[in-house]
Amino acid sequence: MEKKKISITVIRRLPKYYRKLEDLEKIKISRVSSQELSVLTGFTASQIRQDLNNFGGFGQQGYGYNVKELKDNLEKILGLKNVHNTCVVGAGNLGSAVANFKGFDDAGFKIVAIFDKSEDVIGTKIGGISVKDSADMKKTIKDKDIKIAVLTVPKENAQDVAEELVEANVKSIWNLTTADLDLKDDVIVEDVSLIDSLFTLSYFMKEKYK
Amino acid sequence: MEKKKISITVIRRLPKYYRKLEDLEKIKISRVSSQELSVLTGFTASQIRQDLNNFGGFGQQGYGYNVKELKDNLEKILGLKNVHNTCVVGAGNLGSAVANFKGFDDAGFKIVAIFDKSEDVIGTKIGGISVKDSADMKKTIKDKDIKIAVLTVPKENAQDVAEELVEANVKSIWNLTTADLDLKDDVIVEDVSLIDSLFTLSYFMKEKYK
Repeated sequence: MEKKKISITVIRRLPKYYRKLEDLEKIKISRVSSQELSVLTGFTASQIRQDLNNFGGFGQQGYGYNVKELKDNLEKILGLKNVHNTCVVGAGNLGSAVANFKGFDDAGFKIVAIFDKSEDVIGTKIGGISVKDSADMKKTIKDKDIKIAVLTVPKENAQDVAEELVEANVKSIWNLTTADLDLKDDVIVEDVSLIDSLFTLSYFMKEKYK
Repeated sequence: MEKKKISITVIRRLPKYYRKLEDLEKIKISRVSSQELSVLTGFTASQIRQDLNNFGGFGQQGYGYNVKELKDNLEKILGLKNVHNTCVVGAGNLGSAVANFKGFDDAGFKIVAIFDKSEDVIGTKIGGISVKDSADMKKTIKDKDIKIAVLTVPKENAQDVAEELVEANVKSIWNLTTADLDLKDDVIVEDVSLIDSLFTLSYFMKEKYK
C-alpha cells in the first residue's frame, strides 16, 4: 500500500463504507458496485471510487467490488484488528455509557480501566470493570500499557486531566468533553464535538422551520 | 442576509468560531483578527474570512472583527436563541448523560420529556424530569409541541422509533445511535456517529504507532 498523505475528509468516509459492507456481508451479498455503495452511503459513486483509489482501488471495471475483500481491506486500513488497551476517565453518565458501548470491541479498543475522583463511584463496577481512583491513574496506565484514553470528565477539568494522561504516555485521546484540548503535536486527539453537532442541528432547524 | 445555499462544511465550522468568540468575550477581549481566530480554531485565516463572507462578512480591513458583534451574528445564524421543545428517547446511560448535558440550553434545546419502554426506569427522574412510557410518546409529543428528538435507543430499535417520532410530527432527530436512519427527506437528521469517530481514531493510531 502506498504511503501518501490522505485527506482527513476521505478518512472520515471510510468507516461508513466499512459499516455498509458489514451489513451487506451479513445479508450474504458478495458483490457491490460503486453506484450501489452510493445509494447506501449518500456519497457519489465517483467520490467512492476516488476515495478507494487512494488505497489501491480494489474494484474491477464491470464487476464492482468484492464485499468481503473490500471490507477486509478497509479493516486493515482502519486498523480495526489492532487491539489497544484503553481507559475511560470520568465515570459519570457519559463515561458509563461509553464503558458499556459495544462499538469499542469492533474498533479494537479494549477497555481495561475506568477512573474517577469521586468517592461515590470509586469501587463500583461499570461494564464489569471496577472504577479506580484517578489518583492512581498514572501508575495503572503504565502497568497496563494503556495507549488510548476516553475523556468524559467535566469540561473544566479536561485540559488538566489530558495533560496528566499524556505524561503517563497515553498516545491518543477520544475527547467527549466540549473542551478544546491543547496538547503536544504527537498526541492524537479525536473530538466528538457534541456541542458543535447540536449547534449544527440548530442551524438547520432555523433554516427550515423559522 | 442573503439566502444562498451554504455548504455543510462551512456550517460545521461556525460552531467552533462561535465557541471561541464566547471564550474571548469572557476574558473581555473585544476585537479579534482572522489571524488570531486562525490560531484559536486551527482553520486558516483566509478560510475564516471566506466562511464569514458567506453571511455578509462582519469584519473590517485593518480592524478585524468586533467579538461581541460577530458572536451575536453567529448566534442568530445558528439559531441559538430559538427555543425548541425537545425530547430524549431512551433513558439508558447515554440518554441520562444527554438529559444532564448543559450544552442543550446553549443551543436553545429545552428538554421537556424523556421516554423509555423499560418498567425499571419509567417514573424515575433524570435531570429533574420524570421518565415516561414510550407507549405514550406520540400523545406527549403532540401535547408539548415537541419538534426535536434525541435518539439514544439501542441500534436495533432506532429506525422504528425514528419513524414513530416522525409520525408524531417531530421535525429533527439528533441521532446518537449507530444506526443510519432512513426517513422522509424533510426530516433533519444530525448523526453524531460515535462509531465512525472511533474508527477514525483507530486509523490514526495505526498510521502513527503501527
